[in-house]
Amino acid sequence: MPLFHKMISKREFQKLHENIKPHIHRTPVMNSHLLNEIAGTEIFFKCENFQRAGAFKMRGATAAILNLSEEAREKGVVTHSSGNFAQAVSLAAKSLGIPAYIVMPSSAPEVKKAAVQNYGGKITICPPTIKDREEAAEKIVKETGATFLHPSNQLDVIYGQGTAAIELLEEHPDLDVLITPVGGGGLLAGTALAVDYFGKNCKCIGAEPFEVDDAYRSLKSGKIETNETTNTIADGLKTQLGDKNFPLIQKYVSEIIRVEEDEIILAMRLIWERMKIIVEPSSAVAFAAVLREKKKFRGKKTGMIISGGNVDLSNLPF
Amino acid sequence: MPLFHKMISKREFQKLHENIKPHIHRTPVMNSHLLNEIAGTEIFFKCENFQRAGAFKMRGATAAILNLSEEAREKGVVTHSSGNFAQAVSLAAKSLGIPAYIVMPSSAPEVKKAAVQNYGGKITICPPTIKDREEAAEKIVKETGATFLHPSNQLDVIYGQGTAAIELLEEHPDLDVLITPVGGGGLLAGTALAVDYFGKNCKCIGAEPFEVDDAYRSLKSGKIETNETTNTIADGLKTQLGDKNFPLIQKYVSEIIRVEEDEIILAMRLIWERMKIIVEPSSAVAFAAVLREKKKFRGKKTGMIISGGNVDLSNLPF
Repeated sequence: MPLFHKMISKREFQKLHENIKPHIHRTPVMNSHLLNEIAGTEIFFKCENFQRAGAFKMRGATAAILNLSEEAREKGVVTHSSGNFAQAVSLAAKSLGIPAYIVMPSSAPEVKKAAVQNYGGKITICPPTIKDREEAAEKIVKETGATFLHPSNQLDVIYGQGTAAIELLEEHPDLDVLITPVGGGGLLAGTALAVDYFGKNCKCIGAEPFEVDDAYRSLKSGKIETNETTNTIADGLKTQLGDKNFPLIQKYVSEIIRVEEDEIILAMRLIWERMKIIVEPSSAVAFAAVLREKKKFRGKKTGMIISGGNVDLSNLPF
Repeated sequence: MPLFHKMISKREFQKLHENIKPHIHRTPVMNSHLLNEIAGTEIFFKCENFQRAGAFKMRGATAAILNLSEEAREKGVVTHSSGNFAQAVSLAAKSLGIPAYIVMPSSAPEVKKAAVQNYGGKITICPPTIKDREEAAEKIVKETGATFLHPSNQLDVIYGQGTAAIELLEEHPDLDVLITPVGGGGLLAGTALAVDYFGKNCKCIGAEPFEVDDAYRSLKSGKIETNETTNTIADGLKTQLGDKNFPLIQKYVSEIIRVEEDEIILAMRLIWERMKIIVEPSSAVAFAAVLREKKKFRGKKTGMIISGGNVDLSNLPF
């Protein structure tokens, strides 16, 4: 019986973190006087762009695989992902010596497909719709007996993602607010639970593009909303919330701040130019939210998860 | 009488390092399994792209200003620079509360001009030749009584630049080789002296583009050679050696490795994509040299100074 398919206690959360530690990097927390000045708040960037496979998703993928029985592990794991989770599952599976089957939409950036191949993931390309992705993954599950891992709507994955916030709060226990981007909801839900367990009067805020504001609308309406279009540069945030992460987000997230596309590009450029680190557009969404709602963060100690750094350098917005 | 206008002892070098420490960042040393695999050697990147003002030049600028008398400091400092030294002098002067007059060639990237202004440097634009730069700087010296700081051919500046290598060798005392790019020669000369004083059987190697291989030719001929053209993407390496740094380079540098322009761009892209950090083309020259001469570095423990991260994002080679 897998351990973490139910609500996790604080102690279990710490145990899960200990279990994945040998397989992940402890990423640095960076800050920048210049960006603090521009934002009018002190920001602590948890740099998951320096995580193995270039994104926080390595945490959730590792947690989920470690949560499988020995027999299940041997048959391998399957996922569908537009990018970072695909790389993470491939690398985590490779590290743990099991096969990984990856369904990727034809629209995924070349650099992400190449990385998956590099990590030994077996790629199946499908049309770029959620339905096609799910069908292709189901087919592989039937054929191989491998276990399906969902990038964001599976509790062990969600808890794994939350471990970045645990580390950030270990180093900065007095954060007033912790902000992450929200796409499928896994990072935000895991972070929100970590903030509740390990923060001291710390609020958790989500950030998402206006163009895919399903999480914002879901919190307002009280049910999972969908996006009719996904016209955003933040390619990691096009997916929608799920029934496993939505309750955690409802319970533990204070609010979702929405940002415009040009604000995302400006925020990304500022981080690149001033901090000299490469972050994805999806990661810049959180910084854009702080810049947009400066008053909310003024005088606060703000934590921020830089979710990843996997960018197609041939296709930059500047 | 300034302290460091003569050959420095090991103890004085350590003292100079202590003096500048409050004004500079201790930059992180990073490494990457992926890049180690590609290069076939273990590389320790000393990330001066995370230095204040985005480059190692902050070290030399600070060392030189601290080396001035009180009266001289009050009148301020002057320099001419295509970029990083201009920013460094502006910021160092601002931090120490003195004026900085900066002569910049009209060809300098906009992002670098903006940064100098940001740091409070007073800019004079001149035509993009060494002669024009020198004349404009001399004029300011006459008018203001400010002290001229040379970006690379002045001993206190050279020693300041060498402190990055001191820190790298403190953390990794068993490096077999330390490689830096060479342009004006300040970083390489300071690094070479630091390697001699603080390394154990460690060699110092320079790396430069074929397009501006004056340092390579100077070492061969035994006199300072010039470049007839400066057609390289490594905009920080267009200058030539000087009479202060050349003797140090002759004495302490084992060799200079030259690289092609496309090798520089590939090396830069690899660092950006795999390490998720922003490095200048000039910094990528050192990594390109390791990739070009893999045999020389195989099985070695290689240190590398990532000289800076000030890039014009509107004008990337990929």
